[in-house]
Amino acid sequence: MTQATTTGYDPRTYEPLTFHDAARRFSTGDDTPRDFLERCLATIAEREPVVQAFAHLNRDLARAAADASSARWAAGEPLSPIDGMPVGIKDLLETKDMPTEYGCEAFRGNFPRRDNAAVWALRQAGAVILGKTVTAELGGSHPGPTTNPFDARRSPGGSSSGTAAAVAARMLPAGLGTQVGGSIIRPAGYCGNVALKPTQGGINRGERQVTSMSTHGVHAGCIEDMWQVAIEIARRAGGDRGAQGLEGPSTTPEPVKPERLIVLETQGWAELDDASKEGFSAVLDQVRALGIELLHRREDPLVETLEGAIGNARDVCNAITGWENRWLTRNLVDQHPDGVSERAKAVLDAAEAMTVDDYRALLFAREVAQEAHAAVAESADAIITLSCPGPAHVWLGDEPGVPLHPRPTGDPVFNFPSSMLFAPAVGMPLMSVAGMPVGVQVFGQPHEDAEMTATARWLLGAVEPVVVD
Amino acid sequence: MTQATTTGYDPRTYEPLTFHDAARRFSTGDDTPRDFLERCLATIAEREPVVQAFAHLNRDLARAAADASSARWAAGEPLSPIDGMPVGIKDLLETKDMPTEYGCEAFRGNFPRRDNAAVWALRQAGAVILGKTVTAELGGSHPGPTTNPFDARRSPGGSSSGTAAAVAARMLPAGLGTQVGGSIIRPAGYCGNVALKPTQGGINRGERQVTSMSTHGVHAGCIEDMWQVAIEIARRAGGDRGAQGLEGPSTTPEPVKPERLIVLETQGWAELDDASKEGFSAVLDQVRALGIELLHRREDPLVETLEGAIGNARDVCNAITGWENRWLTRNLVDQHPDGVSERAKAVLDAAEAMTVDDYRALLFAREVAQEAHAAVAESADAIITLSCPGPAHVWLGDEPGVPLHPRPTGDPVFNFPSSMLFAPAVGMPLMSVAGMPVGVQVFGQPHEDAEMTATARWLLGAVEPVVVD
Repeated sequence: MTQATTTGYDPRTYEPLTFHDAARRFSTGDDTPRDFLERCLATIAEREPVVQAFAHLNRDLARAAADASSARWAAGEPLSPIDGMPVGIKDLLETKDMPTEYGCEAFRGNFPRRDNAAVWALRQAGAVILGKTVTAELGGSHPGPTTNPFDARRSPGGSSSGTAAAVAARMLPAGLGTQVGGSIIRPAGYCGNVALKPTQGGINRGERQVTSMSTHGVHAGCIEDMWQVAIEIARRAGGDRGAQGLEGPSTTPEPVKPERLIVLETQGWAELDDASKEGFSAVLDQVRALGIELLHRREDPLVETLEGAIGNARDVCNAITGWENRWLTRNLVDQHPDGVSERAKAVLDAAEAMTVDDYRALLFAREVAQEAHAAVAESADAIITLSCPGPAHVWLGDEPGVPLHPRPTGDPVFNFPSSMLFAPAVGMPLMSVAGMPVGVQVFGQPHEDAEMTATARWLLGAVEPVVVD
Repeated sequence: MTQATTTGYDPRTYEPLTFHDAARRFSTGDDTPRDFLERCLATIAEREPVVQAFAHLNRDLARAAADASSARWAAGEPLSPIDGMPVGIKDLLETKDMPTEYGCEAFRGNFPRRDNAAVWALRQAGAVILGKTVTAELGGSHPGPTTNPFDARRSPGGSSSGTAAAVAARMLPAGLGTQVGGSIIRPAGYCGNVALKPTQGGINRGERQVTSMSTHGVHAGCIEDMWQVAIEIARRAGGDRGAQGLEGPSTTPEPVKPERLIVLETQGWAELDDASKEGFSAVLDQVRALGIELLHRREDPLVETLEGAIGNARDVCNAITGWENRWLTRNLVDQHPDGVSERAKAVLDAAEAMTVDDYRALLFAREVAQEAHAAVAESADAIITLSCPGPAHVWLGDEPGVPLHPRPTGDPVFNFPSSMLFAPAVGMPLMSVAGMPVGVQVFGQPHEDAEMTATARWLLGAVEPVVVD
């Protein structure tokens, strides 16, 4: 452990990289998108050798795009509030000017020269697509090279590893991730980011619509940038096929104080370390002291029913997604037997042992959980729980001769519920444990993306971040 | 017009190629899948030069697969009732041993070496994947070279042109099509096939899940083969992500006489030729004489409401699908400006003029129509209407200097409703007009695939096909 690889994290003093405030100075000429980009590139030059957030960087095209944006701001004609914002795109999404390799050896050099619908929308809004960020292989659990910016021995989380780390390391103000289990909110929790996992279907996934509970989402240094990126995409490309798509105000929703929050334990609570329990309890104490009522499973039978319905969320979610991906993965393994990790092959094996009736039973379990979630809609304004099971773990790679670590990018145990419930979730950097971030999330009923953003914005303003040594 | 290109069609005497009865003789050794295949290949040798149903044929692999199937039948161990059935796969679906060209110049030579989930399931059931069948470009309206087997001057319909024609010409007992507007039921109507367009989501589309109202479906010479192919796929690969998938008995549902049918006019009735009106009226007269009550818009306000809700189905469906395909098509046109037809580009232009709010309004119109459909669930056992607006039209190709024909594969006007309503539809060869097939369809509430098959089976047995000169 050296100074170069460990900076530590204190949520009270950490200053994220933000764009919305810089953009105010673009109009006056005190700053420009090109200068903003150059500052990002300087940070990348400094941090990237250790953090390894990027699968691909496109400095030249980014500079050209930033210059064009600078000219639009100078002319008083920006395309949107995020015109000129440097963003990273998780390397599961196609980009016409960069390869798309899915963190998978079999796709090395894959360059489809197409833009995912969300990437197209970002370009329409003037955003500067600076690079592709590292994803765990195929969006699963086999990790890429990215390290946690606050301690390089530790995982950044996954599968949106690179986006989470790039934002946390101040290389980028925002970036796109995707979540099928916990791939947005968990790495945001490990990296101290703000993040939005929208309502299922909220952001158009374009060519990537084979799984039933995956969403595109946003990591950012602040909630203003988070919302603005999401809404600019949704206004241009809408949601998934057949979905209304993310709706809400054209700028970040104003903070709204909740009256009552449900505290959800999920499967994760029983396995959680004591320090993180202590930290979360301290957050909840502040929330209660601010006059917000908290509702637990022991006090409310509907909450208890919901806890029961999500009590096996991990197995339900993993099996549903495994089944949905089985034909794509089978084709890939057949074509590239050596190009797919043993971890992905094990997931395929499990999926190929399933029957259609197994899948139907899992869908039914998910529907029951969604009904249990709907049943608490009137009980509280939102649900609050952790974003991740404590701080990111030390991860130094697989060791020869040792069985594969089952979850090298961390456990999505606190994230399966919002994925399974199709619920909008917002991750907030409200804690640190032993010098590492531990996120807290709120999530709501489907289509309450703006409401959850307003709630999170209020909590971010009112709750003093908790530090546990 | 020569003898070679025109055979004419009489539904009273036409004998389709069927498999289920031949399969009975496989067990006794009086016939074999290999012999069945050779008979198909002989018909293909005779008819294909004019019909042009295939984009690709794989005779060698098919013969090897048929031999393997013959051995399984001889050993008394067929994989399923369709073990050894030669099938054609619409060239929109990926097949690991044949190219997938989407009827589109830009995809000439495209060979992804992957199996669509439904193709995988067919192989698991022992079916012999004989070839890729011609599709209108990208499943749209720009036609391929296929001609109508009963009059080569006429269109076979589209976009499942090749599958429809191959079955009608007795080259194949069954094949896969896809329908987003009317691409299964319409060509079946023009070609005298039986066909199933399942409930939306009924058959797993694998990698093809970008549109919200497209389904894989089956063309066959008889309803037994139609159902068996569909259920064998669904039992192995299930439905689309998040969908229960096609459910029903493991062999073809027994015929069930309906008590009451709703006669739906749709947008198509007002534009229909008199001979087809006369023919359909004669079909309905028989139905009524068989003791089945018929319900029209003028007799029932709920039916009138449904007619009103689908009165603009054409525009609603085309715009929804155009929007959903716009990013894929934009990427394709950007990559291959000369590889995409003017017709497809015009569809893209219309889609790119839409906003997210336009799309949301169309989804709302579709939901209202679905509610109007649900409201008639108790009024009748099924809906009956035509499969196509009269017999297939003469189509001799685009002419230089003349504006592009808007619908060269025919008008899906009678098909948009079942697509829009996510309803299972079964096409029946119950009429001919001027020596050409004109299909009749029944459709039901979502998930009533088996019930519609039982209803269609009863009608096919009880109604004498109507011939209008």
